[in-house]
Amino acid sequence: MLMAELSRRSGVPVATVKYYLREGLLPPGVTTSATRAEYGQAHLRRLQLIRALVEIGEVPVAAIRKILAVADDESASVHQMLGAVQYELGPHPAAPPDEDPDWQAASRQVDDLIAGLGWIVAPAAPARTLLALTLAALRRTAAAPPGPGLRAYAEAMAGLAAGEVASLEATPGRPPAGDRVALAESAVVGMVLYERVIVALRRLAQEDASARYFG
Amino acid sequence: MLMAELSRRSGVPVATVKYYLREGLLPPGVTTSATRAEYGQAHLRRLQLIRALVEIGEVPVAAIRKILAVADDESASVHQMLGAVQYELGPHPAAPPDEDPDWQAASRQVDDLIAGLGWIVAPAAPARTLLALTLAALRRTAAAPPGPGLRAYAEAMAGLAAGEVASLEATPGRPPAGDRVALAESAVVGMVLYERVIVALRRLAQEDASARYFG
Repeated sequence: MLMAELSRRSGVPVATVKYYLREGLLPPGVTTSATRAEYGQAHLRRLQLIRALVEIGEVPVAAIRKILAVADDESASVHQMLGAVQYELGPHPAAPPDEDPDWQAASRQVDDLIAGLGWIVAPAAPARTLLALTLAALRRTAAAPPGPGLRAYAEAMAGLAAGEVASLEATPGRPPAGDRVALAESAVVGMVLYERVIVALRRLAQEDASARYFG
Repeated sequence: MLMAELSRRSGVPVATVKYYLREGLLPPGVTTSATRAEYGQAHLRRLQLIRALVEIGEVPVAAIRKILAVADDESASVHQMLGAVQYELGPHPAAPPDEDPDWQAASRQVDDLIAGLGWIVAPAAPARTLLALTLAALRRTAAAPPGPGLRAYAEAMAGLAAGEVASLEATPGRPPAGDRVALAESAVVGMVLYERVIVALRRLAQEDASARYFG
């Protein structure tokens, strides 16, 4: 297909496609004349992944480059590729100074939880920091309600995550099995949009629980 | 206590306390001389709620005023007060034009889900819009993975919400039962910080699930 069709089918404006070509995020098409180049399905799928990362994941170009490099590197496993996607999605909180006692206690709590559940999570996973920062904030806040316990949250998320990860391979309309770029696109969409689904459903569930308990 | 102690114990700077007094968010203390006023426990708890709304909930002053009005109105139930807290916490997404077919289908899906679960949720709950907007985005996105199903997410959240709401009354160090302002403070802290706990744990659970499925 020509540039105009690539733009139309991907929903990405021509000027933006040209920007991605200049930035090397998209490989050049096959030149057919001085001013024309042909693009294929691989270009289209790559552009769709970039679009999902930009529009849904709000991921900056430098981070997109890293994700595409892992997707292109066939020696990296699908697990490594999904890790690259997740780690490049924000936020990327900085850990506070090590001497903060709430932070120390919260970090240990995260390590103990992950070990206790037998979860396979890399030491460098940004979500460890995200969780420890939030637990440290809860420790510092006198008014923090105890909630149903950290393990209950973890088990609820584990129950959902197994189905989420398995469903990546069952996305309707997906191109041939083993298309890593298409799998990465589904992963971005699923990670970001179902997070919003969870947040909205939690609020609805809390309203119902409050109506029953306090209403 | 005097202003200086109120500031120290609440962790809110004197200038900010004076701003809340001017704005009427905090009632005046008992004047003991031309330049001194005495403040009590009710001031302290109210200031702690305002601080939680500003710092943790990032709620604007106009919205804080609405929450405090419901907390002060003893004819409003605790359920109504918790609703005010939740509804004033952002985001407040605007519904798209009614003729958008994805939006129509997504809104029906939300109504059907809530009815099917027998949840008690007000028609005006902002989380209905939040959920429908996200479901509409999923409908528009060809690469959206099917996930474990909306009902699985809803049931996981319902399981957690019951414990969350009940635990509001069991917050350690809480002042006397029936203190609505203190309850509202715990609700803000719990709604916002446990949302972050859930997001972080979901990412960790996904990494573990991916390691087992694709690793």
